[in-house]
Amino acid sequence: MSRTRKPAPKIARPAPSLADYAKGIRAGNRAVLARAITLVESSRADHQALAQALLTKLAPHTGGAIRVGISGAPGVGKSTLIDALGLYLVKRGHKVAVLAVDPTSLRSGGSILGDKTRMARLAAEENAYIRPSPAAGKLGGVARMTRETMLLCEAAGFDAVLIETVGAGQSETLVADMVDFFLVLVLPGAGDELQGLKKGMIELADMIAVTKADGENIARASAARAEYAAALHVLAEPHAHWKPGVAVVSAKEDTGLDALWKAIERHRMLLNERGLLAETRKAQSVRALWSHVDDALLSRLRAAPRVQALLPKIERAVAAGRLTPFLAAVRLLTAYEQRSARPRKIK
Amino acid sequence: MSRTRKPAPKIARPAPSLADYAKGIRAGNRAVLARAITLVESSRADHQALAQALLTKLAPHTGGAIRVGISGAPGVGKSTLIDALGLYLVKRGHKVAVLAVDPTSLRSGGSILGDKTRMARLAAEENAYIRPSPAAGKLGGVARMTRETMLLCEAAGFDAVLIETVGAGQSETLVADMVDFFLVLVLPGAGDELQGLKKGMIELADMIAVTKADGENIARASAARAEYAAALHVLAEPHAHWKPGVAVVSAKEDTGLDALWKAIERHRMLLNERGLLAETRKAQSVRALWSHVDDALLSRLRAAPRVQALLPKIERAVAAGRLTPFLAAVRLLTAYEQRSARPRKIK
Repeated sequence: MSRTRKPAPKIARPAPSLADYAKGIRAGNRAVLARAITLVESSRADHQALAQALLTKLAPHTGGAIRVGISGAPGVGKSTLIDALGLYLVKRGHKVAVLAVDPTSLRSGGSILGDKTRMARLAAEENAYIRPSPAAGKLGGVARMTRETMLLCEAAGFDAVLIETVGAGQSETLVADMVDFFLVLVLPGAGDELQGLKKGMIELADMIAVTKADGENIARASAARAEYAAALHVLAEPHAHWKPGVAVVSAKEDTGLDALWKAIERHRMLLNERGLLAETRKAQSVRALWSHVDDALLSRLRAAPRVQALLPKIERAVAAGRLTPFLAAVRLLTAYEQRSARPRKIK
Repeated sequence: MSRTRKPAPKIARPAPSLADYAKGIRAGNRAVLARAITLVESSRADHQALAQALLTKLAPHTGGAIRVGISGAPGVGKSTLIDALGLYLVKRGHKVAVLAVDPTSLRSGGSILGDKTRMARLAAEENAYIRPSPAAGKLGGVARMTRETMLLCEAAGFDAVLIETVGAGQSETLVADMVDFFLVLVLPGAGDELQGLKKGMIELADMIAVTKADGENIARASAARAEYAAALHVLAEPHAHWKPGVAVVSAKEDTGLDALWKAIERHRMLLNERGLLAETRKAQSVRALWSHVDDALLSRLRAAPRVQALLPKIERAVAAGRLTPFLAAVRLLTAYEQRSARPRKIK
């Protein structure tokens, strides 16, 4: 049992071997799982090598979970809903992993504190595992870490993975591209009270859920459901295999969770029947590959001293219209080409 | 006058100098403009160099147009609306350039034939210039050509640029990122008749226009307007400086064009007042720079023989889950690094 708040110390204990890690994770050992995740999140080259070897070894045992992304503006009740939905799933025999992608934690340099406090009921469950957002690095790196953590959790037997994202920046797109189902939470309201949705959310949403539908909110939640449903109907892409709908839930009263989860299962069944689940996941993996390549190429170019020397001037000239974007690109690429030819280490 | 269907032959006439091009374009000479656009669309290195020099020289004379992107599914009446809107603008003293980004022309290898036939009334106007979609190269290249053609048209005195895109693939995103205002056309209808919108369109739309609102369509157009307006209201991002609305137009009866254009002008005024027009265009230019850099880096990597040899196997292994996306990326990058160190020409 390692329901401790801090990740396991890295030096104190003898380092497990690749086989130890694989065996421990397959046995559902939470301490080993936590330690493997710290490998995935480490920037040390030897940790990375071990992490990738482990992921390769465990690959045949991954993919078994329903992967759900959950997003929404601050205050919409994400943690409370995840707490309730997680408990609902645990009670039905699922093993639930909760991960997070929080770009604000990148800025503050610290991961979300108190994830387990925010999801107090779920954190106490044997069959739930809550892991805060990785804090270090760039968003692309965090996406990789979260994706790989999800795979480790699947190998450890978790069959439902909920990935929370705070609905800011590019994190939703990244999370949507690693899950099977993307759920967007909104507050109850009607007419001018409706809070609207952040740009891009409609495109990602497989479902909208109106939260806090309890007590005096019930009528407003129902009105919100009708308005969002009408909007989604108007905007629904023709011939799409799945039409996003609107659920109404109360984490406080545990209502609506059953209908919500049944919709998620129906979506999965539909994808499965049409062979789309496997296809989607394959395409996601290949996109992740290209996203890593793209990130690496761009960050190498940006890191080249000649490019760094040139860049501020070039961007100013382009913004001011003194230099065409194409010529500017050629100059940056030329500066990059002239970099020293010494072999460099792959990051 | 060069209202001919074919671009001017490239060899037959003596090549104008940079100064000739600049002078001819500034004088509004359509033959010179057409010839300059063929430079922009040419893949020959000397043409490209001349085109970039010309764009640099003309830069102080660009930026004067209202730039409008217009999209919608096939059959929605894009050409007919552009014909009518163009005529409306010409009659109000505007000089109108109509450009197109048609990714289907990339596949067929030919540009849209008959653009001038589809916009017969506008094509006959002295103060209108219709240029079909560039046909060669990749979408990123077409985006660059269209962007640069727009700048040449501005330097030639065109103060309204309408860029048509066929509503397929990634072309809308590219067009939306080179214009001030993005208009999405939909057919009249109501309830289950509504055709819905392609994913991504809502995020891009500064306005939706219901087309063909004439004759027996009027009631259905009005119903569609109400439904789209309600949907946009529900989905409107809070605190946005511009709330997309719905216009109703008939190109056949020339109705609604005035209200549509006034909305576009209001949007521009609003952006101007807040200093957002200049900001947006600067940001667009810098994004164009990075998009060129990104395209070039990725296409170089993809073109490297060692990468090409490895790529099919790697993508298959990633799709099958035998190789992690991160390891796959490292392998491709390593193969790329091992490429011959001979200096290569900047594309």
